[in-house]
Amino acid sequence: MSSNRAVAYKGPGRVEVVSTDYPTFELKDGPGVNPANIGRKVPHGVIIKTVATNICGSDQHMVRGRTTAPINLILGHEITGEIVEVGRDVEFLKVGDLISVPFNIACGRCQNCINGHTEVCLHVNPDRPGSAYGYVDMGGWVGGQANYVLVPYADFNALKFPDKDQALEKILDLAMLTDIFPTGFHGCVTAGVGPGSTVYIAGAGPVGLAAATAAQLFGAATVIVGDMNAQRLKQAASFGCEVIDLSKGEPKEQIEQILRVPEVDCAIDAVGFEAKGHGANTAADAPAAVLNALMDITAAGGCISIPGLYVTGDPGAANEAAKKGALSLNFGTGWAKSISFATGQCPVMRYNRKLMQAILADRVHIAKNVNAKVITLEEAPRGYAEFNEGAATKYVLNANGYLDKFAA
Amino acid sequence: MSSNRAVAYKGPGRVEVVSTDYPTFELKDGPGVNPANIGRKVPHGVIIKTVATNICGSDQHMVRGRTTAPINLILGHEITGEIVEVGRDVEFLKVGDLISVPFNIACGRCQNCINGHTEVCLHVNPDRPGSAYGYVDMGGWVGGQANYVLVPYADFNALKFPDKDQALEKILDLAMLTDIFPTGFHGCVTAGVGPGSTVYIAGAGPVGLAAATAAQLFGAATVIVGDMNAQRLKQAASFGCEVIDLSKGEPKEQIEQILRVPEVDCAIDAVGFEAKGHGANTAADAPAAVLNALMDITAAGGCISIPGLYVTGDPGAANEAAKKGALSLNFGTGWAKSISFATGQCPVMRYNRKLMQAILADRVHIAKNVNAKVITLEEAPRGYAEFNEGAATKYVLNANGYLDKFAA
Amino acid sequence: MSSNRAVAYKGPGRVEVVSTDYPTFELKDGPGVNPANIGRKVPHGVIIKTVATNICGSDQHMVRGRTTAPINLILGHEITGEIVEVGRDVEFLKVGDLISVPFNIACGRCQNCINGHTEVCLHVNPDRPGSAYGYVDMGGWVGGQANYVLVPYADFNALKFPDKDQALEKILDLAMLTDIFPTGFHGCVTAGVGPGSTVYIAGAGPVGLAAATAAQLFGAATVIVGDMNAQRLKQAASFGCEVIDLSKGEPKEQIEQILRVPEVDCAIDAVGFEAKGHGANTAADAPAAVLNALMDITAAGGCISIPGLYVTGDPGAANEAAKKGALSLNFGTGWAKSISFATGQCPVMRYNRKLMQAILADRVHIAKNVNAKVITLEEAPRGYAEFNEGAATKYVLNANGYLDKFAA
Amino acid sequence: MSSNRAVAYKGPGRVEVVSTDYPTFELKDGPGVNPANIGRKVPHGVIIKTVATNICGSDQHMVRGRTTAPINLILGHEITGEIVEVGRDVEFLKVGDLISVPFNIACGRCQNCINGHTEVCLHVNPDRPGSAYGYVDMGGWVGGQANYVLVPYADFNALKFPDKDQALEKILDLAMLTDIFPTGFHGCVTAGVGPGSTVYIAGAGPVGLAAATAAQLFGAATVIVGDMNAQRLKQAASFGCEVIDLSKGEPKEQIEQILRVPEVDCAIDAVGFEAKGHGANTAADAPAAVLNALMDITAAGGCISIPGLYVTGDPGAANEAAKKGALSLNFGTGWAKSISFATGQCPVMRYNRKLMQAILADRVHIAKNVNAKVITLEEAPRGYAEFNEGAATKYVLNANGYLDKFAA
Repeated sequence: MSSNRAVAYKGPGRVEVVSTDYPTFELKDGPGVNPANIGRKVPHGVIIKTVATNICGSDQHMVRGRTTAPINLILGHEITGEIVEVGRDVEFLKVGDLISVPFNIACGRCQNCINGHTEVCLHVNPDRPGSAYGYVDMGGWVGGQANYVLVPYADFNALKFPDKDQALEKILDLAMLTDIFPTGFHGCVTAGVGPGSTVYIAGAGPVGLAAATAAQLFGAATVIVGDMNAQRLKQAASFGCEVIDLSKGEPKEQIEQILRVPEVDCAIDAVGFEAKGHGANTAADAPAAVLNALMDITAAGGCISIPGLYVTGDPGAANEAAKKGALSLNFGTGWAKSISFATGQCPVMRYNRKLMQAILADRVHIAKNVNAKVITLEEAPRGYAEFNEGAATKYVLNANGYLDKFAA
Repeated sequence: MSSNRAVAYKGPGRVEVVSTDYPTFELKDGPGVNPANIGRKVPHGVIIKTVATNICGSDQHMVRGRTTAPINLILGHEITGEIVEVGRDVEFLKVGDLISVPFNIACGRCQNCINGHTEVCLHVNPDRPGSAYGYVDMGGWVGGQANYVLVPYADFNALKFPDKDQALEKILDLAMLTDIFPTGFHGCVTAGVGPGSTVYIAGAGPVGLAAATAAQLFGAATVIVGDMNAQRLKQAASFGCEVIDLSKGEPKEQIEQILRVPEVDCAIDAVGFEAKGHGANTAADAPAAVLNALMDITAAGGCISIPGLYVTGDPGAANEAAKKGALSLNFGTGWAKSISFATGQCPVMRYNRKLMQAILADRVHIAKNVNAKVITLEEAPRGYAEFNEGAATKYVLNANGYLDKFAA
Repeated sequence: MSSNRAVAYKGPGRVEVVSTDYPTFELKDGPGVNPANIGRKVPHGVIIKTVATNICGSDQHMVRGRTTAPINLILGHEITGEIVEVGRDVEFLKVGDLISVPFNIACGRCQNCINGHTEVCLHVNPDRPGSAYGYVDMGGWVGGQANYVLVPYADFNALKFPDKDQALEKILDLAMLTDIFPTGFHGCVTAGVGPGSTVYIAGAGPVGLAAATAAQLFGAATVIVGDMNAQRLKQAASFGCEVIDLSKGEPKEQIEQILRVPEVDCAIDAVGFEAKGHGANTAADAPAAVLNALMDITAAGGCISIPGLYVTGDPGAANEAAKKGALSLNFGTGWAKSISFATGQCPVMRYNRKLMQAILADRVHIAKNVNAKVITLEEAPRGYAEFNEGAATKYVLNANGYLDKFAA
Repeated sequence: MSSNRAVAYKGPGRVEVVSTDYPTFELKDGPGVNPANIGRKVPHGVIIKTVATNICGSDQHMVRGRTTAPINLILGHEITGEIVEVGRDVEFLKVGDLISVPFNIACGRCQNCINGHTEVCLHVNPDRPGSAYGYVDMGGWVGGQANYVLVPYADFNALKFPDKDQALEKILDLAMLTDIFPTGFHGCVTAGVGPGSTVYIAGAGPVGLAAATAAQLFGAATVIVGDMNAQRLKQAASFGCEVIDLSKGEPKEQIEQILRVPEVDCAIDAVGFEAKGHGANTAADAPAAVLNALMDITAAGGCISIPGLYVTGDPGAANEAAKKGALSLNFGTGWAKSISFATGQCPVMRYNRKLMQAILADRVHIAKNVNAKVITLEEAPRGYAEFNEGAATKYVLNANGYLDKFAA
């Protein structure tokens, strides 16, 4: 049995790489494991050796202490790997297969999975619908920023790459299929993006850049990205996006300068509940700022999609309402314009196969667009810190050496 | 030229029937007419003699002083009538045709109309997209609670009944095609109601009852209506709805008693911004109460549709946030459940022809379900008052005697 | 181990009830079993004692010798049963559960299943996408007109009734969830049926009557059914359908008499490749007759859905083209009217849960509408014969006594 | 009044440029004008001076004598122009506006137009739903391969370019918005093309190349075009399409060589009823050859869209069935694979605004991809001849000198 190193949450602002158990086909007790899940047998799972395992912006919510994540939680839900063991009930996968693992865990048997809503699977999280690896309130499935990780319901969840050598050539792009590329794409789909659309994306972090990439792949006419981080805006501009500096104020006027009209067909919130104010208020928490701005600049009859995370409880929030996840929304503005709103996790399986085809056919370069940077697993704490400080970088952990040739 | 009597808003709590000008093919200055619309030529219009013209719950928002509606505004946007004059440019309608007039006025030529979004037409209201007859901030088109009214862009807007005699037999049902039946139906469509769905509708006023009727027509398995007005709940129960008394508390437990599960597939807010609290708090304004309850009881992955009106300004609201139309929404709850939200006016033309077919084929009895009651135009003030006091009644004004045989 | 009696195909025009093996968790060699499926392990399966198992019109295609079905094939794909054994890998079902089994067998793990296309599952039939129990060219899964049957991938495929006693009260209706009710409903969905639609259904056999029931549940304004069998037309009329006698000629004129216009919004072909001519030609095979008639009477921009089966080979056909499954379609007529066409098996799982909800809430009475008749398993040959002769009856086999109280 | 030169059909294989009447706001008698349309007043029209007016492959069907087009019919339905006169009832356009004219004429007032089905408008063609300029059986609206042309219902039909100078810079691309670019795009939409799809397009004429361009804009992973014309295949390859030479046989094997699998997600028939056989049979008419091949190579559950024209009558066809527009389709193959089929004219207005945005934002280069070539109006006969001989060229007529700088 191999040793297993993994990234653990150690309290607000702290992550450490620790030695942890090698996975078995059972969900054992541990930090954040729901009591009803303890001892759950996983004969339908596979154990993978991670090929790539990324740091996600939603991990940062936990690390910044803005959630109720328990100390010692093993982090990581963006996992690509090679199968090293298959459970008894696995029928269509075998040792050696290279797979992409959707961040949402789904059983493939409940009515939500049957209806394509794998993001709210009913069978994997005793607390509520929906689950993910290494995440607070998600049932306790062990995170994948590690050498090895267990993937349950693998015949259903895993996306197998058709050709291993071909996949390893494009593995940095394919590593984005676990979460941010489908998440950005889902933002586009639910916002109604299509060929010829004008699109505004709030937030130039990795999800925002992935949404911008997805919008371009979708044939959008003009993709505008807003942020107050100059480095991230520069990254967005590097692949053809128009950019807006929100430290200069609300986006409306800048949009008009770009498009001749002060509104867009489609809007995407890639920021979520840790939003800051615009203009002179960028230092202060303003959790409704992004959504209120989007209602202002979305064309009547349009849609606002919200891949950015909004939480039910935010212990680190500035006031009582925000601590309960309540936002002061200008809902009347949205209503008057017949705007619709789409929320929630992306059901990754709805999109990842087609996006894989686009990557393999060289139609899209997501790793370059989000500025993927390979670091070792042991360097994860540094990656978390730099990302938290606003680096325009998507950190990919090279846990087992597969990515050596992509390392800087 | 005939005399023209009409219902006018005379200040908070007051409506009066006044004598007013007979319409011409021009939009003249008057209360609430947008300056840019004054003198607008309407050769594409028809003048109709009203056959039925209903009082709507959204009229009550104005009459209760909860909007900025100007004194002397002529009210009424639910208009069915017989054509008495056709404008020069009208090609497909003629004098004597019996038509249903969608409450939203639309040009039929702008990109929103072309895309089926007639509720946010770009050409009829200089203030913002979307318009309606006799309504505040909607461009100033004269209301239709009157003997005669001008219908612009008539070839596009008017739904002509194929057989006049047949239509007059079912005219009370057909009178609901102008607004509440399509509005309730749109609520069902955007909430994802279909055969076999379980549906919760907040509010048993006419729109709620119309939504319940639409849900039944759509084949919903179980339709549940919540309110705190016993008379209105009784009306809902009269045609097969399950009912919930919200004065007894939040709807969740009562839903579980009906369905065995504490959630529904689809939820509809037929209340809007004048919502009251549930349980012991039904006396107090609680503008976010309905939406927060719906996020609680809608199944993960579901949709909440919001035909109930939310406004950008509510001068009569209890606090500063509500005066600006800002609501304190538990958005994190909605996000965790992947719920989507649909807002705005119903684009009536998308549905009225098919719903007419259903009425004419005797498949649905909307007038009975909303308890339509015919009164004279001169009795309108009494109708407004009784409706405001909570009567479980949809008031239909018989302005020109066509409805004599339906009058009590 | 119990004995197992089952209905076998014995050559054109002949079925017999035979003693056969009790199922195990393995697909063994037998009539029609694809070599690549022989010996396939089924630990994910359950063995059920059949509660209801129906004769389907598509069984008749085989029994009439219009397919390449092998002698001794065990028939039956409309199966409702009680679980008596669960395979090792089954997680969410247990002995005693009452389940409805979709006629299409699906793995729940391939890309088609993930996308909701369970009717073309890639993993269950080595010949081609899609499978079914007891059917020619479908991989060889043993039919369920028997006392006991194996249901593979049961966690995914089975629809469990939430309350056993409640289900047994409505079991004749629920028995239609395995095939014809969802199949008729899918016909409606793909034809664009909705509230207020006018619908024409070709064929008043069980699928046609199920489609008519589904159209009514969907709120269709007028449902018209055409056939040349007077008894079946009478059955359609018994629950409110308009009917057309095709022995009097093409349907167009009769449609105009009913609707005032000679066309419908939506059309459904519930006949398939064994179509006969209309008017004076009802004795002769005319495989394109139904589709050509539907192109004639469907409104421009409409859809024709085709739940009726068309085959790739028809050894009993009258001419060489039809033997290869080639039809002489008036495609230019369809093109000029912008008509679209939907074909293929119904993906039952997309609809059966919602339709179950509608049945349990007493919103629809499918068993009555299709004139379900309970006979014993041993009486199956008589049921096949009467059905073939045109009885307006849906035969339900009572293999294990659960249906005794419904038997005539 | 200016003189007006126009391209006229003069019998099989012959077109001539003739002098014809300058348009007025009335549809006068002439070749192919439906009697019920003679004398129709068009106060809602505008008269435009053509800026670009293209030769279309569907014009060739007429010119080759494969339709019942009358001698002297003025041809041309791909019209871009500058407004020189506005009718009395026009409200939102003015002299000097530069507009793109959808080839389908639509009233904007009938139920089909209201539902977005402008391709089957009920008010413009007394024969049947749907119309077009200069086309047989389409009501008799005068063609636009001319200096001047009347555009009816202009407020509804015309797409106005927002900036005239900007538009003239990209006018060759924008000229494709009248027909082939939206038509190819509609083919993609109805075939289900989206980001990551694999797509096969039968036919590398202008519509096929436009469909390929649209598929690329839509983010398709791989776009494969099949034809037997080497020059046209070279053109397809010039902008990144994979190509298949059908003179070498059916497309299946060549698709497998490209994609590793012998099927595609989506298929488009850009050939229509004048299809030839594949392999050794490319000299012979084989009207069902394309559709049968597409059923063979489309993945189960997929869609075949059919922008290629199929006619109700083909007097030049090789046999009686084809003369009536009847095709021998292997429908059983399609049914077994659950394939759906979409037919009919493209409703141009559904797409042209967004595609315009894509062109103006420099996201797509349709003119280059279809190899647009500017010739004078007087050179039209040569353009028709070269196009008929298989030139890989889209001919754009420069009737009034606007395109001088683009002329070779």
